[in-house]
Amino acid sequence: MGFNIPQTDKKRVVIVGAGFAGLSLAKRLAKRSDLQVVLIDKNNYHQFQPLFYQVAMAGLDPASISFPLRKLFQRAKNVHIRVTEVKRVDPVAKEVETDLGSLRYDMLVVAIGADTNFFGNETMARNAIPMKSVGEALFLRNELLSDLEKAVTTADYAVRQGMLDMVIVGGGPTGVELAGALAEMKKYVLPKDYPELDLKELDIHLVTSPDVLLKGMSAASSKAAQDFLEDLGVNVHTGMRVTGFDGTLVEMKDGSTIQSSKVIWAAGITGNTIEGLPEDALVRGNRIAVDRMNRVNGFDDLLAIGDIAYMEEGDAFPEGHPQVAQVALQQGRHLAENISELLRLDGAGEPFPFTYKDKGSMATIGRNKAVVDLPSRSFNGFFAWLVWLVVHLFALIGVKNKIIVFLNWCWSYLTYDQHLRLIIRPYRKPDDESARNTKE
Amino acid sequence: MGFNIPQTDKKRVVIVGAGFAGLSLAKRLAKRSDLQVVLIDKNNYHQFQPLFYQVAMAGLDPASISFPLRKLFQRAKNVHIRVTEVKRVDPVAKEVETDLGSLRYDMLVVAIGADTNFFGNETMARNAIPMKSVGEALFLRNELLSDLEKAVTTADYAVRQGMLDMVIVGGGPTGVELAGALAEMKKYVLPKDYPELDLKELDIHLVTSPDVLLKGMSAASSKAAQDFLEDLGVNVHTGMRVTGFDGTLVEMKDGSTIQSSKVIWAAGITGNTIEGLPEDALVRGNRIAVDRMNRVNGFDDLLAIGDIAYMEEGDAFPEGHPQVAQVALQQGRHLAENISELLRLDGAGEPFPFTYKDKGSMATIGRNKAVVDLPSRSFNGFFAWLVWLVVHLFALIGVKNKIIVFLNWCWSYLTYDQHLRLIIRPYRKPDDESARNTKE
Repeated sequence: MGFNIPQTDKKRVVIVGAGFAGLSLAKRLAKRSDLQVVLIDKNNYHQFQPLFYQVAMAGLDPASISFPLRKLFQRAKNVHIRVTEVKRVDPVAKEVETDLGSLRYDMLVVAIGADTNFFGNETMARNAIPMKSVGEALFLRNELLSDLEKAVTTADYAVRQGMLDMVIVGGGPTGVELAGALAEMKKYVLPKDYPELDLKELDIHLVTSPDVLLKGMSAASSKAAQDFLEDLGVNVHTGMRVTGFDGTLVEMKDGSTIQSSKVIWAAGITGNTIEGLPEDALVRGNRIAVDRMNRVNGFDDLLAIGDIAYMEEGDAFPEGHPQVAQVALQQGRHLAENISELLRLDGAGEPFPFTYKDKGSMATIGRNKAVVDLPSRSFNGFFAWLVWLVVHLFALIGVKNKIIVFLNWCWSYLTYDQHLRLIIRPYRKPDDESARNTKE
Repeated sequence: MGFNIPQTDKKRVVIVGAGFAGLSLAKRLAKRSDLQVVLIDKNNYHQFQPLFYQVAMAGLDPASISFPLRKLFQRAKNVHIRVTEVKRVDPVAKEVETDLGSLRYDMLVVAIGADTNFFGNETMARNAIPMKSVGEALFLRNELLSDLEKAVTTADYAVRQGMLDMVIVGGGPTGVELAGALAEMKKYVLPKDYPELDLKELDIHLVTSPDVLLKGMSAASSKAAQDFLEDLGVNVHTGMRVTGFDGTLVEMKDGSTIQSSKVIWAAGITGNTIEGLPEDALVRGNRIAVDRMNRVNGFDDLLAIGDIAYMEEGDAFPEGHPQVAQVALQQGRHLAENISELLRLDGAGEPFPFTYKDKGSMATIGRNKAVVDLPSRSFNGFFAWLVWLVVHLFALIGVKNKIIVFLNWCWSYLTYDQHLRLIIRPYRKPDDESARNTKE
C-alpha cells in the first residue's frame, strides 16, 4: 500500500474532507493544471447534509443526495482522490499519515467539518441517535419503521408508547425539519399504512434550550416555524433541556419524563480532530483558529476552511462565523482565488482577506410551509417553501440527482406520500454459513 | 408481544413469504373480504429478484426494486402484514410460531422460496458472495468499489490482481447478467473513474459446469449469450467447476487457479426450511412435494407455492417445474382461483389442477444485447433487449418504481454511465461514543 501519487514539479495541495468547503475548493483547483491536488475523504462520495432529514423520513434515497467523488473529477487529471482517513498531521515535516502511508504536501487544507456533540452526557451518547451522515439518517429511518412494526403487535400501552413517541433534541433547522416531516408522515402516511394503530398515541416532542426555535433567524421566522409545527401537532418545548435518557425514559430539566425509545440528537456539534494539528490553535467548539486568509496561526502552508475553521471577522463576526454551508462554500472559493498568492507562485502578489456575504437562511417545516430570512426581509409560507425547494435543488450536485430529487418531491407532493418505507439492512457475511450449505 | 390479529368468523389464510408467489396470491385474496389474510415476511418489502444484479453493479438503487408491503395493501382491510420470521409450524394444531407468538390458521401457504446453496463447500460458503437479496447485492457493490479504491494504491501486481479480477460462478441468468454488466462497467465507466488503473489487468471470469451458458434455454440463445460476453471480453469457462476458494486464490477442477478476492456465487439454490413441515414431503433441492392443487402430501390445509414447491405435472414437467418467477406468479394466481374450493366454502365445488403456461425466458447481456426464447421462436440482439426491458419494467411493482427505473435506464443508456458508485455503509451505534462527547 502507498499513496501512489506521481512526483511532479507542481506544488501539491492536499485537501482533507470533501464536504461543502473541501469540495468547493477542489472543484476550482481542478482547473489549475499547474497544481497537483490530492482530495482525501473517508467516503467515496460527497453527502448533501441539508437533506439528511428527508433520508431519515423515507422521502429520499441516500443515493439521491450523495455524489461519487470520482465522477465529479473524471475530467480533472490533476486531482487525485484517495478514500482513507487521515490519522496524523506533521506540520513541521509537512506530511499527513493515513492507512495508505505518508504523503508530503506543499499546502494542507483541513476541511474536516464537525460531528455530533453530546456535551459529556454519557447515557445520551450511548442511546440517542445522531444525524450527521447519510448512514445515521438511514439508521433513524430503520429504527422508526421497525418500531412502528413492533407497535402493531404490542398490547401493553406503556411499552407501545415508547415505540411510538419520538423526542427530537435541538431547535435548529435539522430538528425543526425532522419534526415537521415526522408530523406530516403521521398525518398523511401512517394512517394508511397502519390502520391497526391508534396514531393519536404517537407524540412528537421537539426540545430546545433557547427560548425560541431557529435561534439566529429573525423573531418572525422563529415564531412562524413554531406556529407551523404546533399546527401540525408537534409538542414544542422551548427553554427546556433533556437531562437524561436510558433508552426507554427521557428526563427533562424540570423533572418531567417522556416514555420513548427514540431520542434524536441534533443539539450541538464539535469540530472533528486530527492528531498533530497545533493544539494552541484549538478554540471553543473544537474549532481551529485561522486568520482572515484561513491560515492556522503561525503556519503559511497549513489552512482550515468550513465548519472546522474559526475566523474572527472584525466587527461583522467578532465571535466567528456560523457553522453553515454558505460560509464553507465561500471560504473554499476564496481560498481558490488566493491560492497562487498563498503558495507564492511566480508573479503572485499578496493574498486578500475573506469577507462573508450572508445571503440569508431558511428552514422548511412541511407542505407549503417554510421560513426564509433574506438580509433585507423575512417571509414565510408557500412562497418561502418554493424558495427553499429551488435553492436546495440547485445546490445539489449532479443533474441526475436534481432530476430524481425533483421527481421525488413532485410525487410526494401530489400523492401525500413518502415512498421509501423500506427497512433495508445490508448483508454482512455471517461466520457460519452452514444453514445455506446442504449437501444433496 | 402477540400477533394482535382480530378473531373473526372468517377463514384465516396465513401466507409465509412475500416473494413472487406469496404476493401474487395475497394481492388476489385482498379482494376477498370474506377471508382474513395474514402475510408474514422477515422484510417489510417485496424485492424484485431479476434486477438484483443491477443493484450490485451500481445501476439501480435498492429502493427502486423494493416495494413496501404496507403500501401495497393500504386499501385491503382484510390483509394483515406482520414482519417477523416463522420459526416452527405445527400442521396438526394448525399453528405457526414466531417471535410474536403463535397464530392459528385455517390454511397455511408456504411461499418461502429458496436461498443460495454452496453444495457443502465450506470454504466457498465462508468466502464467496451470494446474490439472493438486495442486501447481498449491496454488499457486492461495496466490495467491488472498495477493491477498486484499494487497487489504486497497491503497487504489488499480484496483490492488485486479486483486487481487480472477479470470478462469477453460475451460468444462469444471474451469472450471465452480472458478467455482462461488469464488462460494460469496465469498458465505459471505470476508465473515466480510474485513469490511474490499467484496466487491462481487470479480468472477468464466468464459470459454469454445463457445456453451455443459460442451460435450459435454446441452443441459439446459449450460443448468442456466450458470443456477446466474449465480445465484451469476459472469459467464459463452460464445463468447468470451481473447487476451492480461500479468499485470495480460486481453484478450478482442472487444477488451474485465478488470483481473486471476489467470487460471486450464483451456482445453485436450496429451498428455505421451517421446522415442523412434514419431513417426508421434502425432496431434491430441499423442495416440498405438492400435488397439482399445491397441497403438501396428506394435508388439506397446508400448501406450498413458488420456488419451494415441487410439483410433477404429468408428461409436461415430470421432474417438476423450473424455479422461476413465472411459475411462482402462476401458482399464486391459480391458488387464489382455487381458494374457495380448497377451503370448502359454501357452494364451492372441486378444485382444479395447476397447469404451467411457459411464456418463455430471457436474459440480458448488455447494451442492445439480450436473448429471448418464446415458445414459438428464439431471437437475440437489439429487439430482444427491448423486449427484456419492457417485460421487466412492467413486472416491477409500483408506478413510481417503474418511472425511476425507466429514467435510470435511459440515463445509463445515453451517458454510458452507472451512476450509483457509492460505498454507503449504514451507521451502527458504536459501543463507545466518547470521541463525540467533548465537555467544553
